[in-house]
Amino acid sequence: MRILITGVDGYLGWSLAQHLTMRGHEIGGADAYFRRKWVEEMGSWSATPIVSMPERLRVFKDNFNKEIRFWEGNLCDYNLVEKIFREFQPAAIVHFGECPSAPYSMIDVHHATWVQNNNITSTMNLLFAMRDITPNAHLVKLGTMGEYGTPDIDIPEGFFEIEFRGRKARLSFPRQAGSWYHWSKVHGSNNIMFACKLYGLRATDIMQGVVFGTRINGMPEDERLWSRLDFDQAFGTAINRYCCQAVIGHPLTPYGAGHQKRGFLPLRDSMQCLTLTLENPPKPGEYRVFNQFEEVYDITELADKVQRAAATLGLTVEVRHIENPRAELENHYYNPDHKHLLDLGYQPSHDVDAEITIMLKDLMRYRNRIEAKREALIPDVRWDGRREKSRFVKA
Amino acid sequence: MRILITGVDGYLGWSLAQHLTMRGHEIGGADAYFRRKWVEEMGSWSATPIVSMPERLRVFKDNFNKEIRFWEGNLCDYNLVEKIFREFQPAAIVHFGECPSAPYSMIDVHHATWVQNNNITSTMNLLFAMRDITPNAHLVKLGTMGEYGTPDIDIPEGFFEIEFRGRKARLSFPRQAGSWYHWSKVHGSNNIMFACKLYGLRATDIMQGVVFGTRINGMPEDERLWSRLDFDQAFGTAINRYCCQAVIGHPLTPYGAGHQKRGFLPLRDSMQCLTLTLENPPKPGEYRVFNQFEEVYDITELADKVQRAAATLGLTVEVRHIENPRAELENHYYNPDHKHLLDLGYQPSHDVDAEITIMLKDLMRYRNRIEAKREALIPDVRWDGRREKSRFVKA
Repeated sequence: MRILITGVDGYLGWSLAQHLTMRGHEIGGADAYFRRKWVEEMGSWSATPIVSMPERLRVFKDNFNKEIRFWEGNLCDYNLVEKIFREFQPAAIVHFGECPSAPYSMIDVHHATWVQNNNITSTMNLLFAMRDITPNAHLVKLGTMGEYGTPDIDIPEGFFEIEFRGRKARLSFPRQAGSWYHWSKVHGSNNIMFACKLYGLRATDIMQGVVFGTRINGMPEDERLWSRLDFDQAFGTAINRYCCQAVIGHPLTPYGAGHQKRGFLPLRDSMQCLTLTLENPPKPGEYRVFNQFEEVYDITELADKVQRAAATLGLTVEVRHIENPRAELENHYYNPDHKHLLDLGYQPSHDVDAEITIMLKDLMRYRNRIEAKREALIPDVRWDGRREKSRFVKA
Repeated sequence: MRILITGVDGYLGWSLAQHLTMRGHEIGGADAYFRRKWVEEMGSWSATPIVSMPERLRVFKDNFNKEIRFWEGNLCDYNLVEKIFREFQPAAIVHFGECPSAPYSMIDVHHATWVQNNNITSTMNLLFAMRDITPNAHLVKLGTMGEYGTPDIDIPEGFFEIEFRGRKARLSFPRQAGSWYHWSKVHGSNNIMFACKLYGLRATDIMQGVVFGTRINGMPEDERLWSRLDFDQAFGTAINRYCCQAVIGHPLTPYGAGHQKRGFLPLRDSMQCLTLTLENPPKPGEYRVFNQFEEVYDITELADKVQRAAATLGLTVEVRHIENPRAELENHYYNPDHKHLLDLGYQPSHDVDAEITIMLKDLMRYRNRIEAKREALIPDVRWDGRREKSRFVKA
């Protein structure tokens, strides 16, 4: 299948290009290298060294004996999107080409509006290109479990049946996002739902949990194929950041009380789930929502897991809570459904500890790169608008 | 009270500036004259002749012996918004500064993204200016009943209590908007709800029905004070457009089967409701939603009312249905709540027929202006992406 991956230079995009190529699919990719620039703006870089895209493309060809067809440019430019669709005629589009960071969107009014406009426009441009050029294509859009927030009731997969004043309806489950970024994804989800209904397009909206890990299954040994791995406050996520902290002996830093629960899944499981989604497309006009995660963990529990795995590798680190820069519930009910992907055949790898150990070993080789950007590990973008480093909190 | 009206040059903005001035409030206004340009782009103009803003400001002063403080510019420019807030220090902001047209947003990908970005950015800029400069101010944002769409259950005012799998929650009522424009308003509503929660701002989100009429109470006789009144496919709304059709003997043109039900209210009632809202602000941190309309009518029923009122003035017109350019249900359940404003003391004028007659008399003086743009009365922007005039349908 011809699959276009937007944001192919990113953490998930670059991994998925390889995974799908190994499955026999033909890959096109687009990227404007925003992720590299954003991370630099946050005073950081990828813990794993990554080569330039032209170099990546050469290395890819050397290893897989297949080429990625690549377009450099901004998805907010409809002319570019149209050109890509006409030239590549994708059967599916995996849309990773959005800004994925809550803290980045919370920096100030300019970042808030930039993130929302960028994410809305890129998605809208894809929808119109699909309508006009490849109406039968399948859009797989990366959303986030963060769109739902933490309501005090179960979270279904996108829709729920309810009764209200004696009448019944199947409605979209109300979202309670917690950052301008997360709301940008809700806005995008709403736009996609509408486009499917109106234009008969097909789409799967992935409410993904937090992804962690450095490896995918079957990956060649060439290190230049590795994906980026971020650890800064804006683009690094919980387990990945903890592991980067562990390898330089920095305390692991859950935010606030640290009982925030989230869904998590290893990078290799994310690849498996996205492949299942692509290989089992919805019907024309269907907009479906998958909650994509393996299991729910409390973020302190995960810090403890990283601490224990680190100890087995001779790394001694503390777990020290820091002030929560975010406005979020730190103790809450959390019971999201995640059945659709299991029904399609998803087999969870179910070994978070083993995955963490692999990641720690990989990252230990790049200790110096993490050490060099140590300052980026502690957040200073606060949800109330201040820019002030979080302090450690007393136990 | 110091009240900033964004979009003060528009249909509602210009009327509200006068109404609130008569109530003793101090008015600031901002506008970039987009509405004038959009209507021109649609090949039309206001049925009522309107003078330039500098002239409007002079006429305003002559009639009310009070000045409107005016800033010309684009609300998407945060520097401008910041300047206005610092200079004017509003206690309340009435946000009419968005693009209000469903058909305009459906023209093509460029209009769709422009409308969404414009509406999101202008609202976001106001929220940040409130946070940083006037945190105690009250935002009154004009939304639309169209955000809800036509679900097969009752429509509450913004929120509802539901039970799901044995647990209860008060949640935002899921929206089912029917155009890129309507979704832009949903996105804005979500952003405002979040800003109130996060920054402790106060806001009232007005889900307004379709407004009609040429007059507000207590208006001086100076014709240069009249608001614009649009009749083109994109900026003219049902009753106003029917009345413009009637005065030039053009058939009244309900779309499709014509049993679409909507909430309506006269312009003078809209002024009353907005004033009640402003003079009864919510608590800090409160985001409240008012469904603002007088009564629900079927759009063919309204065409019949206009036809009858026209006949009493010697105007003979047919009602002829045309192809519906929109994708919408033409027969549906519709039972929206509208209690909050009645609780605050809203007294509906309850005389649609009298209001229509007043409007017809006003418009008969401008027959030539409507006749000159007759082509603009029949829609050609279709929801499926085509640009093709709707034809009359056989009875």
